[in-house]
Amino acid sequence: MNKGLSPTDIVGGSFWLLSIAMIAATFFFFAERSKVAGKWKTAMTLVGTVMVIAAVQYYYLENMWISTGQAPLVLRYIDWALSRPIQVVSFFVLLSAVTRLSTALFWRLLVGSLVTVVAEFLGSAGYMSTTLGFLIGMVGWLYILGELYLGEASTANANSGHERSQMGFASLRLIVTVGWAIYPLGYFMDHLGGGVDVNTLNVIYNFADFLNKLIFGLVIYRTAVDSTDSSTS
Amino acid sequence: MNKGLSPTDIVGGSFWLLSIAMIAATFFFFAERSKVAGKWKTAMTLVGTVMVIAAVQYYYLENMWISTGQAPLVLRYIDWALSRPIQVVSFFVLLSAVTRLSTALFWRLLVGSLVTVVAEFLGSAGYMSTTLGFLIGMVGWLYILGELYLGEASTANANSGHERSQMGFASLRLIVTVGWAIYPLGYFMDHLGGGVDVNTLNVIYNFADFLNKLIFGLVIYRTAVDSTDSSTS
Amino acid sequence: MNKGLSPTDIVGGSFWLLSIAMIAATFFFFAERSKVAGKWKTAMTLVGTVMVIAAVQYYYLENMWISTGQAPLVLRYIDWALSRPIQVVSFFVLLSAVTRLSTALFWRLLVGSLVTVVAEFLGSAGYMSTTLGFLIGMVGWLYILGELYLGEASTANANSGHERSQMGFASLRLIVTVGWAIYPLGYFMDHLGGGVDVNTLNVIYNFADFLNKLIFGLVIYRTAVDSTDSSTS
Amino acid sequence: MNKGLSPTDIVGGSFWLLSIAMIAATFFFFAERSKVAGKWKTAMTLVGTVMVIAAVQYYYLENMWISTGQAPLVLRYIDWALSRPIQVVSFFVLLSAVTRLSTALFWRLLVGSLVTVVAEFLGSAGYMSTTLGFLIGMVGWLYILGELYLGEASTANANSGHERSQMGFASLRLIVTVGWAIYPLGYFMDHLGGGVDVNTLNVIYNFADFLNKLIFGLVIYRTAVDSTDSSTS
Amino acid sequence: MNKGLSPTDIVGGSFWLLSIAMIAATFFFFAERSKVAGKWKTAMTLVGTVMVIAAVQYYYLENMWISTGQAPLVLRYIDWALSRPIQVVSFFVLLSAVTRLSTALFWRLLVGSLVTVVAEFLGSAGYMSTTLGFLIGMVGWLYILGELYLGEASTANANSGHERSQMGFASLRLIVTVGWAIYPLGYFMDHLGGGVDVNTLNVIYNFADFLNKLIFGLVIYRTAVDSTDSSTS
Repeated sequence: MNKGLSPTDIVGGSFWLLSIAMIAATFFFFAERSKVAGKWKTAMTLVGTVMVIAAVQYYYLENMWISTGQAPLVLRYIDWALSRPIQVVSFFVLLSAVTRLSTALFWRLLVGSLVTVVAEFLGSAGYMSTTLGFLIGMVGWLYILGELYLGEASTANANSGHERSQMGFASLRLIVTVGWAIYPLGYFMDHLGGGVDVNTLNVIYNFADFLNKLIFGLVIYRTAVDSTDSSTS
Repeated sequence: MNKGLSPTDIVGGSFWLLSIAMIAATFFFFAERSKVAGKWKTAMTLVGTVMVIAAVQYYYLENMWISTGQAPLVLRYIDWALSRPIQVVSFFVLLSAVTRLSTALFWRLLVGSLVTVVAEFLGSAGYMSTTLGFLIGMVGWLYILGELYLGEASTANANSGHERSQMGFASLRLIVTVGWAIYPLGYFMDHLGGGVDVNTLNVIYNFADFLNKLIFGLVIYRTAVDSTDSSTS
Repeated sequence: MNKGLSPTDIVGGSFWLLSIAMIAATFFFFAERSKVAGKWKTAMTLVGTVMVIAAVQYYYLENMWISTGQAPLVLRYIDWALSRPIQVVSFFVLLSAVTRLSTALFWRLLVGSLVTVVAEFLGSAGYMSTTLGFLIGMVGWLYILGELYLGEASTANANSGHERSQMGFASLRLIVTVGWAIYPLGYFMDHLGGGVDVNTLNVIYNFADFLNKLIFGLVIYRTAVDSTDSSTS
Repeated sequence: MNKGLSPTDIVGGSFWLLSIAMIAATFFFFAERSKVAGKWKTAMTLVGTVMVIAAVQYYYLENMWISTGQAPLVLRYIDWALSRPIQVVSFFVLLSAVTRLSTALFWRLLVGSLVTVVAEFLGSAGYMSTTLGFLIGMVGWLYILGELYLGEASTANANSGHERSQMGFASLRLIVTVGWAIYPLGYFMDHLGGGVDVNTLNVIYNFADFLNKLIFGLVIYRTAVDSTDSSTS
Repeated sequence: MNKGLSPTDIVGGSFWLLSIAMIAATFFFFAERSKVAGKWKTAMTLVGTVMVIAAVQYYYLENMWISTGQAPLVLRYIDWALSRPIQVVSFFVLLSAVTRLSTALFWRLLVGSLVTVVAEFLGSAGYMSTTLGFLIGMVGWLYILGELYLGEASTANANSGHERSQMGFASLRLIVTVGWAIYPLGYFMDHLGGGVDVNTLNVIYNFADFLNKLIFGLVIYRTAVDSTDSSTS
């Protein structure tokens, strides 16, 4: 952090903001984990883990930005390769707390999310045609959405009869549908749509990532706390 | 920290003091969180989170000050954009422990505090007229005060019938009224009132921030501990 | 991290990924440790310890890579000298939770794993003939496999009558058989098989290490959680 | 830590020693806090907080010493402004565990200790006549001693009828009487008594601080543990 | 860590290994502390504290070695001045869990161990004749051995009638007898026996320290766990 941060440096400022916010979120989710009932604790751990990953990632990116004035977009796949599969698997963990699921669903969700991230990475980094990377990434994402809206996850959720969990499931699914649209959109603009300013995209990604992770985490937190309270009383 | 800190460097010394104090406060609030009853734990977590944010922020600012001799005031919005909404939301969490509240109140408090911080930031950073930023910021702050003195939060507090919580609520409201006046005041002096020495303002902000955060936290701590004791015995 | 990380730097990127993943894994395993029954806690601690070791090791290697552009393969023995014995000893700890074992088995497993790592290190670093280092390393590994498939560990596992633990044991044994084959294979390619590009081997080792440690940890976690649940209900 | 530490550098070595010792003390007091009964936990938290403050302070001073070869005495007031009030307040917290106290005593102790530190700081840093700073500092210290030997704190202690707590109180009071004499003494030697070598004073302060903090903490720890044991059995 | 670590740098590699191992040991002992019964927890805390001290010390030494290519032996007294008294006091804490001891024993053990370390330090750093430092250090060590084999500690151990604790005591005593012989031996070789290569001695000290601390800790851990299990069942 030798050169400091200029007051007009929105990219650097947003990295700084994100790194602090994610450290604080790590404390929040791991501390509040102690409040929820046993079967909800693993979901809280996963959410906390997503915050840890983002905290370290943004700390690294912020330092790199201040030292070098660059924060290549492709480095974001380091975070995404870890956090997006964890978030998709969170659906499985959340449903596991209230109903019985097949192990196959776990693997389908994990593989689907990994395929998405890896394809987008290979396209972004130039190891694969950018168009092919985009298409495979889209297929992976649509597959996950299919699983959540029409597949086993959807059915299991509908049959669980656990109202709080169903509300949480619907909210999380909405985040994955709407919030995650930023990832293929950013990819498209950067690689297929004629290019876009990397700084602008960094700032957009920062705030999208912030909301996608934080709101996702808070929905799981709220579901876990409400379910704990109602099962106690 | 290559160049060290001069004994006569009050700005740097106050950053150093704040960074240490906030680390210590983080330990204090998270450790003491274990002492309070379940329903007060979330308020303690939020207070602890505010300390974490300030600890990292002041650590960054101190390092930047020592390396570059600068600590632009606008960077403070990185902390404020996180800590002020959390503090305003703390009223909701505190009241939630003793009475039932509408979810709408949560959103009104959150949005009100965000509007204040964002408007002041846009004005400070030059993305908006400084006067307009000031006015919108004032409106947001006054709205929050209205909510706390006259609105749903005020009514819910009056009807809770929980004496300890009401004492805490009154103290917190006083901090937001009197202590938080430093933020528009500093803004006014810096941008509208003919300018002010940035070093002086940094030192004033440091001590105001210190008191606003620490006393706010201690009031919540005291309320939580007293309520825990009285409900146990 | 002064020079930053180039988007096309796969070696540096994989170090970055690993260092973040292992920090996150440390949080995960230590947090989830609280969920498992008392007698499974030590196994979880050992798994968490392996993650701590890898987190620090990869953080160091990443920093070295970025500063110097080098990450000599022989430095990996610093991690391996600690993590591989801990992982082999985990078999003992896992079986100890469900059956009675001789202390001699503990020492045989510990010494066997240490012999493997030390011999490979001495061969790699040039303190011993590379061929001799390879052969002694192979003998140590085969000895451990013998213990797990045919020796006391195998018998104790078969006689424990604890189905979940037996499933875990079989999975862990498979990792040590198949996943660990990367270590002598990499050694052979590097020192005996005509040489190999150090960057390629670094990337291969990173992903092999990642899977060997993470899956190993998750198998123990799954075994501990399932055994806790079934013994409670 | 670029230039390293020379074997004959007693100042740097004592900073190094203190920074490590205080980190270790932080772990010790926060871990052992779990052993004491609920009403003693806050005293343990305060002691732990004092260690955190010292750990960070000495870490900073050590780094500054190694980079610049200087560690101005006046920077010590950053630690003292936080740790001495916390230690004085510890008397209140300790007595609160065994008897009922007026809130006014809390404020008198807090203000008394702050007056002492702030006056000494203003005198040291040249914002006030060194003689006046010394005199006000002495008055503050003597006031605290008066409170502890003759005032409400003394009476409350005598009337508590809790033998263990009274032993602890007497020991802590002795530390504040004898051990804390180093602070006005060092101030006098430095500013009024013709000057003294800053390195010598740094080393003296380091060891005095070490003992004042560690023994103070251990007395509270011992009191808390003994009271917990006797109330359980 | 700017210059990185050469693959053939055994001194630097052993510092690296030790710093990682001690961080991992810190996690291990503090996590497993939760498993042992209340009266054994303090012994576990002390062991964990020794690991913290070593972790920070070796981290500092490793950084210094990489930046400057030097790691003067006399800096080791910073660790030893803290860790050796803690380890000697561990005998008192261990015995306290199973029998009643005089406070005088505590002070004799503490003073004896401090005399040893301080005398050796004064001799090594040239503040005292190296021969005199050696002799006083030897007297301190022999005094501790006398206390453990013939004095009150020995008698208390024999009379405790707690088999597990007696086994632990015997093992710890053996470490202090045999393992600690490295300290006067290294001192003698370095200062009295014609000199020795500082790098060789650094490596020897590293591995001796590693074993002396880790095995010491594991013996206490084993004793605490076994005693907890047997008292529960």
